[in-house]
Amino acid sequence: MIGCASTTQPVDPLPSWNEGESKQSIIAFVESVTTEGSPDFVEPAERIATFDNDGTLWGEQPLYFQLLFAIDRVKELASEHPEWKTEEPFASLLKGDTKAALAGGEHAILDLVMSTHGNMTTEEFEQLVIDWMATARHPTTERPYTEMIYQPMLEVLHYLRANGFKTYIVSGGGIEFMRPWTERVYGIPPEQVVGSSVKTTLEMRDGEPVLLRLPEMNFIDDKEGKPVAINQHIGRRPIASFGNSDGDLQMLQWTMAGQGPRFALFVHHTDAEREWAYDRHSHIGGFDKGLDEANGKGWTVVDMKRDWKVVFPFDNK
Amino acid sequence: MIGCASTTQPVDPLPSWNEGESKQSIIAFVESVTTEGSPDFVEPAERIATFDNDGTLWGEQPLYFQLLFAIDRVKELASEHPEWKTEEPFASLLKGDTKAALAGGEHAILDLVMSTHGNMTTEEFEQLVIDWMATARHPTTERPYTEMIYQPMLEVLHYLRANGFKTYIVSGGGIEFMRPWTERVYGIPPEQVVGSSVKTTLEMRDGEPVLLRLPEMNFIDDKEGKPVAINQHIGRRPIASFGNSDGDLQMLQWTMAGQGPRFALFVHHTDAEREWAYDRHSHIGGFDKGLDEANGKGWTVVDMKRDWKVVFPFDNK
Repeated sequence: MIGCASTTQPVDPLPSWNEGESKQSIIAFVESVTTEGSPDFVEPAERIATFDNDGTLWGEQPLYFQLLFAIDRVKELASEHPEWKTEEPFASLLKGDTKAALAGGEHAILDLVMSTHGNMTTEEFEQLVIDWMATARHPTTERPYTEMIYQPMLEVLHYLRANGFKTYIVSGGGIEFMRPWTERVYGIPPEQVVGSSVKTTLEMRDGEPVLLRLPEMNFIDDKEGKPVAINQHIGRRPIASFGNSDGDLQMLQWTMAGQGPRFALFVHHTDAEREWAYDRHSHIGGFDKGLDEANGKGWTVVDMKRDWKVVFPFDNK
Repeated sequence: MIGCASTTQPVDPLPSWNEGESKQSIIAFVESVTTEGSPDFVEPAERIATFDNDGTLWGEQPLYFQLLFAIDRVKELASEHPEWKTEEPFASLLKGDTKAALAGGEHAILDLVMSTHGNMTTEEFEQLVIDWMATARHPTTERPYTEMIYQPMLEVLHYLRANGFKTYIVSGGGIEFMRPWTERVYGIPPEQVVGSSVKTTLEMRDGEPVLLRLPEMNFIDDKEGKPVAINQHIGRRPIASFGNSDGDLQMLQWTMAGQGPRFALFVHHTDAEREWAYDRHSHIGGFDKGLDEANGKGWTVVDMKRDWKVVFPFDNK
């Protein structure tokens, strides 16, 4: 069919989206804020769009990918930590029982992250992330994690940027876990990545300053934390926000509470065949209050199974 | 002389700078990192430049301008705080004795800032700053504070941006005190302003989310804090940094410790006639260790009196 398209036919900015309300809502919003003379026109400087990462731009099952990174680190570091043979959550993990390890909930997760993400320089951590991303494979698809990204959302990122938007990630994931690869994978540079963080401190080593990552949380960029972090990092209220879970609800509320045209979108994971299907009762990516509020207020809720022609870029091949 | 310049003469990017080593060092650096094929060429994405604000981009005498804002707020709020008549530092301030009020040092300053910058929404604070900037006048020049900016540094900002740099402020001043006016005055958008901050918390008011500023410090962006904040906000190491005091030394050290071409510049306040002259023993803008290190390492030290044709934009008129 190449070459048959009429030259007057506009190029579809979202080719991986099926025609329907979701796709139409995105295009209608972008056209309204970029049409000069329109009452909804927004100056380019104010075109800020914020995206959650886990479950919105890439997958988050069977576990947050950063948690799978932490688990791999525990296995690598085990020989230096004989005490982990008896201490939870490490003992269960090292026996291969991830479920038992994570039964300790947030406390267990925090232990895992702090013991594997701290006590090194920011540059050492960056290299660990780069190496892991290059070699680790997802447990079910056997793909690199940086391929487990949503093709339709990549198109939204490109479409927004082509229309003068600045696209930001605002994620519960670690800011320094994302920055080494978001520019290559999403076209989002490090300075437009906001996330959770550990405390860092400046230290001199052999006369050179290094930033040391402490095993101590600095900020958790989730729920109420997301508007706080948006204000701290960006200093402008987004006019469009994209999420998939209750952890993103406050970000979308904050976005929609501003003056002028606004857009809020949730990705609803409805496709057990091509991806995963989960919502109200999921431990990861729980989507309950957010779903009700989006339905009540008429925000866009993407039905992944219905709205997306493909999920991952490799589905196209 | 207008009209006499040869068309082959390149436009001077820094017309308010006298010819000399300082001006030449800036131009040589920019040319080296932007010349394609040069061994020092730096990709535009990595061209990050960070600027201190107080004493580097605008004045800081006889007191930090933000402190003058806090003092004005104390006077406005005094009727709601009868207890301030006897409590320091408020009592001395209300009697007009600023020196006695500030004799309490950092603790007194923190009291002043917390009691005047917290307990309101981010939008209410923004409006206070906008109103103050529009009406307040500097005690000696009687100019609006946003005119007390350094014309030669504005030219550096423009010159860097014209050469593909992203320019950031990294200041000990309050991030939300600067953001309402930096875009208009310096061409630096809110998302490129990094500073000290109070804690904020998300609250619902009449069903709408607001960010409430708490009377509690979140982060002090000075000395060792500057590289920490650069890492947190920008996630890349600057290749050029500009400061004027020991509070900026760690930022310049962090910048210079990276790989590849680097540039560090201190503004030295040497002009008692057109501005102020102060350095090693000044309570505000103390410049002692930084001066020694800059001299020892051959960093650029701008002698304001010698190097600048004009100081403020209004000197031109």
